[in-house]
Amino acid sequence: MKKRLIAALSLLMLFAFISAALLGGPVSASPSPYSTNNTYSGTAPKYVFLFIGDGMSTPQINAAQMYLGNRESTGTPAIKTLDFTKFPGVGSADTYDAESFIPDSASTGTAMASGYKTYGGIINMDPAKKTSYEPISKKLKKAGYKVGIVTTVTLDHATPAVFYANEASRGNYYNIAAQLVKSNFDYFGGGYFLDPDGKKANVANAVNILEQARKSGYKVATTKNDILGLNNGSGKVLALDPTAITAANDSYSMPYELDRKTGQLSLADFVRKGIEVLDNPKGYFMMVEGGKIDWACHANDAAAAIHDTIALNDAVKEALKVYYQHPSETLIIVTGDHETGGMSIGFAGTEYSTFFEKLEKQSRSYVEFDKLVAEYKEKTKPASAKLEDLLPHIKSSYGLISATDADAGKNPELVLTDYEMVRLRDALRKSMSASKVTSTETDYLLYGTYEPLTVTCNHILDNKAGINFSTYSHSGLAVPVYAIGAGYQLFYGAYDDTDINKKLSAITKVR
Amino acid sequence: MKKRLIAALSLLMLFAFISAALLGGPVSASPSPYSTNNTYSGTAPKYVFLFIGDGMSTPQINAAQMYLGNRESTGTPAIKTLDFTKFPGVGSADTYDAESFIPDSASTGTAMASGYKTYGGIINMDPAKKTSYEPISKKLKKAGYKVGIVTTVTLDHATPAVFYANEASRGNYYNIAAQLVKSNFDYFGGGYFLDPDGKKANVANAVNILEQARKSGYKVATTKNDILGLNNGSGKVLALDPTAITAANDSYSMPYELDRKTGQLSLADFVRKGIEVLDNPKGYFMMVEGGKIDWACHANDAAAAIHDTIALNDAVKEALKVYYQHPSETLIIVTGDHETGGMSIGFAGTEYSTFFEKLEKQSRSYVEFDKLVAEYKEKTKPASAKLEDLLPHIKSSYGLISATDADAGKNPELVLTDYEMVRLRDALRKSMSASKVTSTETDYLLYGTYEPLTVTCNHILDNKAGINFSTYSHSGLAVPVYAIGAGYQLFYGAYDDTDINKKLSAITKVR
Repeated sequence: MKKRLIAALSLLMLFAFISAALLGGPVSASPSPYSTNNTYSGTAPKYVFLFIGDGMSTPQINAAQMYLGNRESTGTPAIKTLDFTKFPGVGSADTYDAESFIPDSASTGTAMASGYKTYGGIINMDPAKKTSYEPISKKLKKAGYKVGIVTTVTLDHATPAVFYANEASRGNYYNIAAQLVKSNFDYFGGGYFLDPDGKKANVANAVNILEQARKSGYKVATTKNDILGLNNGSGKVLALDPTAITAANDSYSMPYELDRKTGQLSLADFVRKGIEVLDNPKGYFMMVEGGKIDWACHANDAAAAIHDTIALNDAVKEALKVYYQHPSETLIIVTGDHETGGMSIGFAGTEYSTFFEKLEKQSRSYVEFDKLVAEYKEKTKPASAKLEDLLPHIKSSYGLISATDADAGKNPELVLTDYEMVRLRDALRKSMSASKVTSTETDYLLYGTYEPLTVTCNHILDNKAGINFSTYSHSGLAVPVYAIGAGYQLFYGAYDDTDINKKLSAITKVR
Repeated sequence: MKKRLIAALSLLMLFAFISAALLGGPVSASPSPYSTNNTYSGTAPKYVFLFIGDGMSTPQINAAQMYLGNRESTGTPAIKTLDFTKFPGVGSADTYDAESFIPDSASTGTAMASGYKTYGGIINMDPAKKTSYEPISKKLKKAGYKVGIVTTVTLDHATPAVFYANEASRGNYYNIAAQLVKSNFDYFGGGYFLDPDGKKANVANAVNILEQARKSGYKVATTKNDILGLNNGSGKVLALDPTAITAANDSYSMPYELDRKTGQLSLADFVRKGIEVLDNPKGYFMMVEGGKIDWACHANDAAAAIHDTIALNDAVKEALKVYYQHPSETLIIVTGDHETGGMSIGFAGTEYSTFFEKLEKQSRSYVEFDKLVAEYKEKTKPASAKLEDLLPHIKSSYGLISATDADAGKNPELVLTDYEMVRLRDALRKSMSASKVTSTETDYLLYGTYEPLTVTCNHILDNKAGINFSTYSHSGLAVPVYAIGAGYQLFYGAYDDTDINKKLSAITKVR
């Protein structure tokens, strides 16, 4: 009798434990601090999209939705949701890597691509730089999927690189690009390369990457016409944004959405083209990076970050068209790799108010304003530099005006206060001074490694809009994860970024 | 033939639309920017808990988990998860109210308690202050549930108030407390009252709130022994923390967890006692507020905020015991009402590193340090004040030491830099100056409305730990929502804070 009771109780406890584990509840005997569901019994999807907003977490998404919605000043604050935030599978991923709670894109990319935590700066290898990890993208390629890699930054940058390369340092751009060619992946689209000729790496007898690609059977498209002319019969493709190739000023990346001119290609264009090129009966995997949300937040440029977040959503819309055609055969995941800037919707000086409409006044990104400052510096001696010379540029770029400006009465909310004028004058002095401007603790806090006048303009406009940044680096904030389609339920809950890889692996049944 | 085809297609589209709507997918014809699941077909739970971390969003939770986990300095960064983050139902709620993207606790509390957006400062009424809303707590009481309200701040504060009162202004503490008595709710636990005698409100012939409560049949317990002696047969109860009653210095609230002395009651104690008092066959609803996470973040005191977040989790553990006993009859929700402070795990000066172990050196909250500054100010003439006098207090309270301190060699990471010493000297000068210290734009940015020396100590220690705050007010960041038990699946996805009320209503079938 007693034995049977114990046996019954044991069975009951086992059942309770398994139930709780399946439920994802707090019962856990594993060393992992998480209990998340990484098992899937449905059919593997054919069309798999992974969108990564580099540096994009909840603050960037919230800010974009508030910017797009009705502004507070109209008396009816309301957001306009980005499409991906309405996905049914919403979760949260922690992003710390093997050395820091504030990780970089190489380690967090490795976590998502291969499921392992490593040190910052390492592309898809262990912290000792000895073991190479095989990314899910390569496994999917082996399993018969076609693979596409799309980014607004250069194709050899950390986030795209972790999906096709193994390299001890993210800075080994030429080596990384050579691995891109060897990957045999089917579609690369977006920005250019940082060291296509191996010059930075001092490679002896280096063969140009585009030449290598052509030799390996890639069709290389570098004009808008060539890119738009690509189709399902184009074979393996490198589609390089012509603007990125010529825009050496922003490290061979695609232009910020805020700077993109009519007719220039967008991230959505590269995704739409990729869907066309990759389409095949066995399906495809496409990784799409909105890489300059990160860069904008590093520079504390809220307007540029918001516009690039919206551009990422526009690219997601292209994948959603596939989802609507093949809802049970498609999986779309949208997430960030980490947060950048410690962005806050709220600033000490503006207390409980925001003024997102002020960000509409910003007509160009910090990179484009930098060019105006560079021009001025070239033609002006430090001793004769004065802020008044640059006020017209500040007005046309940021909408900020001096108290004596003719429009000051019309736009009082954009008038620079005395304190802001002092900050701008100090910044200009730093901008005009010799090379090393960030030599002191206070200088670094004020300007980071950016052009002092530019970053100060961004700080002032951000703050007037009610936004603030805490850092020029990344932050440790968790990132949201959004999923729709086959297996989206696996993305419920709070988990680690390495789990995103495990869930992808479970859903595609590719290990 | 054609008609039948159209009919079939229409039916198919209707089906697709309904499926997508049920799925919570992006198809939406409603004016709401969300499509979230607010329908429930299961059995209503008997034991319903709503935990609200005031000012608690993802940064506060992430920081607490990093603080508790292994620190980076050990070479193995890893978090220790708070129990509630492992709940299976995780979602995200936007918090903007009817006037601002950066809301207050009165409007966000109203959203959760009653499901309506209103203006800041209004307790459970429409923006015109004419229509009163009936909170879910009152509806549940009518439906036969017992109701408990627990908070670390005063019981007449905005977040508890929205669950039992309707009032045009959150500042009408006496009126609010009078409604507490009339609510006939079964258990009130935690802090005291801000205007128990109606003195602040200048009420003629005001009757003391405790007296009113006793007359209405409440048992009023104001000592630890009386509180711990309460039980299921005590009837209607007011359990008032004796520390809160005497601690007039922190507005009659319970002590910060960081300051709580051995033997003093904790939030978990009040929840455990509430569970005992409220237990009955028809079930109960308990709202529990960790109210001082908000206050700590207003003051930019990271250590105090982290410890109060951990204390909230300890209180959640008490509810989890009920869940384990009655898993299908219990629902526990944990969320925040908004974020406070624009807290960032990342600071410009510390770049990609954090040093959470430095926060362990903080031995008291800003409120307790304020007392030491006040004592010094009382006995010192402004002209003779010098930072050196206060360095021992700064060392014992924050662990921060001057370069000439005997321990400087042993703890170099806690040595104040020249720049930090300048900031402290400036702050002390402000602290010693006449009443109005925040008269200029820069003063406000540096100190808000806080004691300049205190808030500067907090800023310096926060920043040395790699944490930064953007504001002394709230921020517009969305809050995470965690749910376990009956109906937890309804909390999947991204939605509005008013949906938390709708989900609660759907799951309890009380409208």
